[in-house]
Formats: sequence, C-alpha cells, structure tokens
Amino acid sequence: MAVVTAPKQDRSRATRQRLLEAAVACLADVGWAGSTVAVVAERAGVSRGAAQHHFPTREDLFTAAVEYVAEERSQALRALPTDDREQTVAALVGLFTGPLFRAALQLWVAAAHEDQLRDRVAELEARVGRESHRIAVELLGADESRPGVRETVQGLLDMARGLGLATLLTDDTARRDRVVAQWARLIDETLTAD
Amino acid sequence: MAVVTAPKQDRSRATRQRLLEAAVACLADVGWAGSTVAVVAERAGVSRGAAQHHFPTREDLFTAAVEYVAEERSQALRALPTDDREQTVAALVGLFTGPLFRAALQLWVAAAHEDQLRDRVAELEARVGRESHRIAVELLGADESRPGVRETVQGLLDMARGLGLATLLTDDTARRDRVVAQWARLIDETLTAD
Repeated sequence: MAVVTAPKQDRSRATRQRLLEAAVACLADVGWAGSTVAVVAERAGVSRGAAQHHFPTREDLFTAAVEYVAEERSQALRALPTDDREQTVAALVGLFTGPLFRAALQLWVAAAHEDQLRDRVAELEARVGRESHRIAVELLGADESRPGVRETVQGLLDMARGLGLATLLTDDTARRDRVVAQWARLIDETLTAD
Repeated sequence: MAVVTAPKQDRSRATRQRLLEAAVACLADVGWAGSTVAVVAERAGVSRGAAQHHFPTREDLFTAAVEYVAEERSQALRALPTDDREQTVAALVGLFTGPLFRAALQLWVAAAHEDQLRDRVAELEARVGRESHRIAVELLGADESRPGVRETVQGLLDMARGLGLATLLTDDTARRDRVVAQWARLIDETLTAD
C-alpha cells in the first residue's frame, strides 16, 4: 500500500503547488475580478474538479496562494547574510516588489469592499506582517528594547510597502535604489547609536 | 445674455463637482469593477446624459475625480503651519489615509491590468507625486541641495503611502502614530544636521 500511496500524495502535493503558483500569477496579471478557480485550474493544467477538491472556494484558493508565496519569500530572506545593512534594507524592500506583492495588493484592495474576503485577508496580512517584522529585526540586528527601535523598523517596512506600490505602474528602480541607500544610512545610524 | 449664461455656467460647474465627489466616494466604497458612469450619475443625482456630457468615458470621469480631490488636499496642506515638523509629518501621512487615498488606490491597482487606464493613471500619479514632494519639501523646510535630503523626503512619502495601505483593512491608528513620532524625530535630525 505504501508504495501506491506515496506517489499519490506526491502528485496531490504537486497539483496543489501548481494551483497556488498559478493563482498568484493570475492575481498579479488580471486582478481579483478576473481571477476565478476555473481560470487558475486551466492555467495550472489541472481539472476544475481537482482544483475544487483542493480549494472549495475562490477565497480559499487565493488566500492560500498569497500565504504560500509569502512563506517562500520569508524563507529565502532568512537565508540572507546579515553583515551589510544596506543590502538587508534592499532585500527587505525587494519583498514588496515583484509578482507576490502585486498579487497580494490585488487581494488586499479587493478585500476592502468584499465582505467574504475582508476578515481573512486582514488576518493573513497581520500574520505575514508580523513575520516580516520578526525577520527584519533579526537581519538588521535591531535591539527592540531600546526606545524608538521597534518603530524605526516598522517605518522601514511601511516605506518598503510604499515603494512597492510606486513601482506598480512604472519602473521606479533608479529612484528606489537612491531612497534605499539613504534610508539604509538613517537606519544604520539609529540602530548603532547609543 | 450674460445674466442668463452665468447661472447656467454655475450650475454646470456644480454638476461637475457633484459628479467628481460622487466618483471618488464610489471608487472608495465599491472599487473599480463596480464604478461606472451610470452608478456615479445616480449617486450624484444627475442624469446619465448630463454625466456623459461632462465625462465622455469612464476613464475620463475617474481620473478627473482623483485629480480633483488630490488638488483639494494639496491646497489644504499648503495652508498648514510649518513650525512643527512632527505635525507636518503627521499631516503628510494624513494625505494617504481616508477616502481619497482609498479611491486612488482602487484606480491604481485596476490600472495595473487595464490598458485603457494604465498610461493615464501613471501620468496622473507622477504629477500628483511631484506635487506632494514639492509641498513636503516646502513644509519641512528641507534643503535639497544637501546630499541625501531629497531621498529622505522621498522615503518619507513612500512610508506615508505604505502606512495608508496598512490602514485599508484594519484601524492602524495607534501603531501609525508611534511610527510617525519616531520617523518625525529621525527626519528632523537629518534635516537639521550640518
């Protein structure tokens, strides 16, 4: 039995993963209004029935997808070296550009006026936000027992989110790099001051 | 003739203004997908024909609406006293909370995957962004000839945008106030250092 079951579980896990990745890409490309379970199933090359077996509702699929990719990004971030604060700030800002942030933003903005989404997305964002904060504190070597340090790190993540939004419609890379360099300097001074 | 024309122009201007205000409220409440000229006309108590006389397309109406309210906000901001940097930072952050930002965000996010909107919204956002930057420099008394000052102010506006996004689904006021207080301190130090 084990010989038969193991590959079946693997296939099921692979299907689930294909659906999650297709869902994030779909959300980033066409927004919430055009993102349905059927569209994602087709994009992933999975039958609609199989997709609905994994994710009974549209909300299940898309919140799971944003969470899955956020976790992948967190893991990549945790593996970063911590000896260069400017590089760390740039990597944290990088969390808020690219397809994951575009997808999360579509979900977030739809949740502002869709009751079925609102509570789930708010809870998801709070969880992902706490995790990003934890990782930022660790990578920056920030001592949150010192006054102002916690708010300095929070403001940095808010700035990163704002930079991500600025890059949604136009390529903002050159400006972003200059802002990151300057804010990295401000943050480095604040975190190393005694 | 002039006696007849003047009130007619006033009425026309008042109708236009009602449409613009209804459009911003509509966008903030129901998002881009539910925001049409017909819905806004009804909300404003204006006939659909009159609405289409003022704004031939949906894109015309909603980009004009976001621009109109952004200009109103800029004017209010320019009237602020400039003697207290923490108050100035709080007021700048205030630009990115409330119905105008919620409306602009809906338009912005829809523009990411709607070709008819993309160029117009990108151009509008660039214009509004430059104006916000100009006002911020003036209110903060920032000397942009000094290295890093321009990027400090840009990063502050990015942070304000990120804080606005954080407040979309949950009331984030208490955290935001603490972040604003700390970053007002950091920015004040940076702008006054020699």
